[in-house]
Amino acid sequence: MKSYIHRNLGIALVLFFFLSGLCTYACEGESVIFKTDIADDATPAVLERILKADEQPVSEIKFEKGTYHFYPDKGFEHLCYISNHEDVLARTAFPLFDFENIVIDGQGSTFIFHGRMIPFIIEGGANITLQNFSIDWEIPFHSEGLVVGNNPKNKTIDLKYGDVDSYEIRNGELYFVKEYYEHTIGQNILFDPERRAIAYRAHDYGVSTTARVKVQHNIDKIKYKYEGDHQTIGQIQPGREGKMNAREIEPGVVRIQNQGKNVPPVGTILVSKGEKGLNRVSPAIRVTGVIGFNANNVTVHHANGMAIIAENSENLILDGFNVKPSGKRMLSTTADATHFVGCRGQVVLKNCTLTNQMDDAMNVHGTYQKVMDILGNKTIGIHVGHFEQQMFVIGRPNDKVGVVRLSDSFEPYAHLSIKLIQLINGRYQKITFNENLPPNIQSGDLIENLDAYPEVTVQNCTISGNRARGLLISTPRKTLVENNFFHTQMEAILVPVESSSWFESGSGSNLTIRNNVFQDCNHGGLNRGVIRFHTDEGNDKIAFKSIEITNNKFNQFDNYILEIANTDGLLFQGNSITNSGTFPQLHPDSPVVTIQASKNIDFRKNSYTGRATKMMETDDSLKGLKFR
Amino acid sequence: MKSYIHRNLGIALVLFFFLSGLCTYACEGESVIFKTDIADDATPAVLERILKADEQPVSEIKFEKGTYHFYPDKGFEHLCYISNHEDVLARTAFPLFDFENIVIDGQGSTFIFHGRMIPFIIEGGANITLQNFSIDWEIPFHSEGLVVGNNPKNKTIDLKYGDVDSYEIRNGELYFVKEYYEHTIGQNILFDPERRAIAYRAHDYGVSTTARVKVQHNIDKIKYKYEGDHQTIGQIQPGREGKMNAREIEPGVVRIQNQGKNVPPVGTILVSKGEKGLNRVSPAIRVTGVIGFNANNVTVHHANGMAIIAENSENLILDGFNVKPSGKRMLSTTADATHFVGCRGQVVLKNCTLTNQMDDAMNVHGTYQKVMDILGNKTIGIHVGHFEQQMFVIGRPNDKVGVVRLSDSFEPYAHLSIKLIQLINGRYQKITFNENLPPNIQSGDLIENLDAYPEVTVQNCTISGNRARGLLISTPRKTLVENNFFHTQMEAILVPVESSSWFESGSGSNLTIRNNVFQDCNHGGLNRGVIRFHTDEGNDKIAFKSIEITNNKFNQFDNYILEIANTDGLLFQGNSITNSGTFPQLHPDSPVVTIQASKNIDFRKNSYTGRATKMMETDDSLKGLKFR
Repeated sequence: MKSYIHRNLGIALVLFFFLSGLCTYACEGESVIFKTDIADDATPAVLERILKADEQPVSEIKFEKGTYHFYPDKGFEHLCYISNHEDVLARTAFPLFDFENIVIDGQGSTFIFHGRMIPFIIEGGANITLQNFSIDWEIPFHSEGLVVGNNPKNKTIDLKYGDVDSYEIRNGELYFVKEYYEHTIGQNILFDPERRAIAYRAHDYGVSTTARVKVQHNIDKIKYKYEGDHQTIGQIQPGREGKMNAREIEPGVVRIQNQGKNVPPVGTILVSKGEKGLNRVSPAIRVTGVIGFNANNVTVHHANGMAIIAENSENLILDGFNVKPSGKRMLSTTADATHFVGCRGQVVLKNCTLTNQMDDAMNVHGTYQKVMDILGNKTIGIHVGHFEQQMFVIGRPNDKVGVVRLSDSFEPYAHLSIKLIQLINGRYQKITFNENLPPNIQSGDLIENLDAYPEVTVQNCTISGNRARGLLISTPRKTLVENNFFHTQMEAILVPVESSSWFESGSGSNLTIRNNVFQDCNHGGLNRGVIRFHTDEGNDKIAFKSIEITNNKFNQFDNYILEIANTDGLLFQGNSITNSGTFPQLHPDSPVVTIQASKNIDFRKNSYTGRATKMMETDDSLKGLKFR
Repeated sequence: MKSYIHRNLGIALVLFFFLSGLCTYACEGESVIFKTDIADDATPAVLERILKADEQPVSEIKFEKGTYHFYPDKGFEHLCYISNHEDVLARTAFPLFDFENIVIDGQGSTFIFHGRMIPFIIEGGANITLQNFSIDWEIPFHSEGLVVGNNPKNKTIDLKYGDVDSYEIRNGELYFVKEYYEHTIGQNILFDPERRAIAYRAHDYGVSTTARVKVQHNIDKIKYKYEGDHQTIGQIQPGREGKMNAREIEPGVVRIQNQGKNVPPVGTILVSKGEKGLNRVSPAIRVTGVIGFNANNVTVHHANGMAIIAENSENLILDGFNVKPSGKRMLSTTADATHFVGCRGQVVLKNCTLTNQMDDAMNVHGTYQKVMDILGNKTIGIHVGHFEQQMFVIGRPNDKVGVVRLSDSFEPYAHLSIKLIQLINGRYQKITFNENLPPNIQSGDLIENLDAYPEVTVQNCTISGNRARGLLISTPRKTLVENNFFHTQMEAILVPVESSSWFESGSGSNLTIRNNVFQDCNHGGLNRGVIRFHTDEGNDKIAFKSIEITNNKFNQFDNYILEIANTDGLLFQGNSITNSGTFPQLHPDSPVVTIQASKNIDFRKNSYTGRATKMMETDDSLKGLKFR
């Protein structure tokens, strides 16, 4: 008698699907075309067709070229635990669960979303293709205020908002009120409208919106039995209060006070996306547990979160996948353009323009989970360290897992293979292995999936105008970065071990970076290498191996080009380094290259016509090394 | 390959289960006893046993008598859409999904919960019995402040908090910070510690925490395509800001300002539970889709929400089910003691003590859903009107549904029977009927399930000290209220049609109220009948039928006893009405009985020794009626 209530595709709280060899839906389904008569709210018609795909398979959904609006009111609701985003009860018109061999073709259409929706929720299945459309939001999840006045002495700035911006001031805090959403200034960054990019020295102008509270009573008496995560909503707020003292000085112009840093110049634009933990609720494309995903000629103009967040998927090819703001907006997506967690096979970005997003252009990594309990010979209880990794499933049966103690080494000290994962809650899972646990395993050790790292290719892409990094790559598999253009506020390429608060696993090795142009990266103000190898651990163990950086052009306003740490084997050859003169130098005393805790570092046939007075700074072991 | 990841009982986003005749788990399962060695955190051990019930059936889980703590950190996480509560990702140690014939017996134990947990999540199954334990929280979800000073001129009050209360002041707003939770003053009410009950005239002292914002810009330009619900979180905030201006005047004592009403007397206790929409996240017992539920000798000392919220269930017998605060606390649960939505068969409360909760002792009703779209001959799209009814399933296949147009009548103008319900999202569902829709059906009409109303018995219960009503009964089935004691801040018994904002369906008929004692009800200050029949519609249609109120004792400080509206057939016989003198009269000019839009009202053999100067006020049709 249960079957009369059905959520069609959504019956299970499905966290992770794998190809079972069966054709679930749409093996040889029909081709459907939607006309613009549904454009006022395309959600009900599109959703109805997708929800009946089990009875009536579909292999292609096309749209007559046009502009289609999608509202959440009649959208399919689905609980999504999404890595690097908030976990949300999402609404969507495209719940593609366990589809195989389906193409969604916009034929040049524009899809305009309203409020809190996830345009595409793709869970399980294989060979999914999205092509020939753009995604935008009618009202964006962020707000852009033109700096029309400032007072360096009183630390005030005057922000002018446009005709479509709605706000109100509650107890001195500015709230932007939207369709089905609201946010404060919260996380923010300064844009330069002339360059249509993050402002030069943006790091020095960031508006700090909170201060420590002045009155607390017995807060130290609050007890937690187990380790928590003080970044979690509900635990992040205590201790902070607003300090903006916003007041409207004329309609549409708001003066905010008490800036800790320099007041931003008149004519720049302050872009605000609200508080951490609340501002990643509507990524454009969510992909998890999919084998074979293609996006061709797809442009994402905006999202609250990332343009695409892919987890536990295999072979993802983005060709002509673009992220760029629409109209006069400065910002595209409020977080990364592309992000891949626990993926394997190939991850390819080619011919992509990834611009003006509020975080990295690409981030590829695995996940560390922390050993919490030893539950018998073969089972552990793990703790999920980061609030945006809740319910993350670390692997498939028989995947090889490394047990890591970072205080000893970045390399695993033992290997196991997965038998069973029991998802108890967002933070706690029981994992049973095929083998006995190593006798010395202890609470606090980390596990990572050694099979769930992809080979990565980034070719012919333009990455510019965004906050944070270009590429953040943590995979030991073969990685090629070639023929790209970079103009980023922080590092162009960061190869990290992010163990401390992000719990993002993966080293870098077999990495080739060639024939790229790096134009005035790190212009936000931090003195870091344009290409940077870095671990959170700060020890002298080897984390990165077999790196080649060849035939690139670095045309930088400042000195620092290459930051090497914890690396064994790096060739830097045939690169040309020039000074662009675009901006005043911020760190004129900085060397061009720094090297720490590394070996087998080789410089050959590079040209240097920059302004640095010191080419290289190394620790003692490489004292004799020369830039050539 | 999917099966290796399993959430055991929780795999499906199960909204509603029905007895299928199969023995799912535990037909002839074993008896398990837990000892106090698990008492430090009983969650993992209890949960592990419950999660393996599919492989190893269990029919009884006992606890050695003791005090057991339950933490959320290793609790089972489950998305719960709960009527009259927030929809939450809940953690629990007792996920009883589809169990049949199981007894949980505490043998006199105390279960202490920590933070955001739902102690019992019972979904689907049959013959579930909970017995012989009490539920409490180490740190409650509300806060109690002793009024130690007041200033009627400046409208300030000084609130003293205890040694275990933790708070901080953020931009003038007082936040109470707890284990895994925080709240503001928000919704609040005044208690009288001498009577250990809601204060006399509490309605005149309620602290109003927000005011209209002073600065808004373009808020009127925000457009919604469809009807929304401005009570929803995300839509409720705009337009309001805090007005408390809290400041600490000595450690543990906070002065709050700008009270709109009278300042509360020194010595009273202000009980605060935080903002609407955020303060019903942890009911004690959630029951949905269960056939046969028993609670015997179970005491709930606290919950964030209700002690028990039952939906779409059948035959619920609560015998010795008590709700009362522990230790020196004034408040028990932050919402109703018991609440039944869409239940059928028998709902019985006997020998229960339901005290000091922040809302009704019992509420029984169905749900109205609003016709939004006509989708063919047999299908409608419905809109869920109240944010706390999202995803509510209105009935089972073949249940009889009435189509109602309240502007014409409280009675349905057409009848249909359910074939299929498709849950699109929390607010929108498609319902297909076996029959064609009536030709005159239109958007805005309501549907109610005529089969999903229970017979109700409330016997030998003590209901006192709480905010709001005693019994709120909306069922047309036979209802007996006898041998109870009532001392409530608002009406003792309210029989309503709550169509306007609560969307709670059901009339009252075949209702007998006999041999009860009503002691100083309505002491909060509203001038309403102790027993009250009321519709939101305010028209002259008949909503209530066949009522008998016999042999009760009303010992009231004020005049108003009986408020009749929209009723056909009411006998008031053998009742005695006295004046208690407990409090000064608040409404000395009020009549004892009022009657509107009613007929066949009969008074016989009642005695009156109260202080009213006017016994009865009626509209024209009953002008000749006399109190006898």
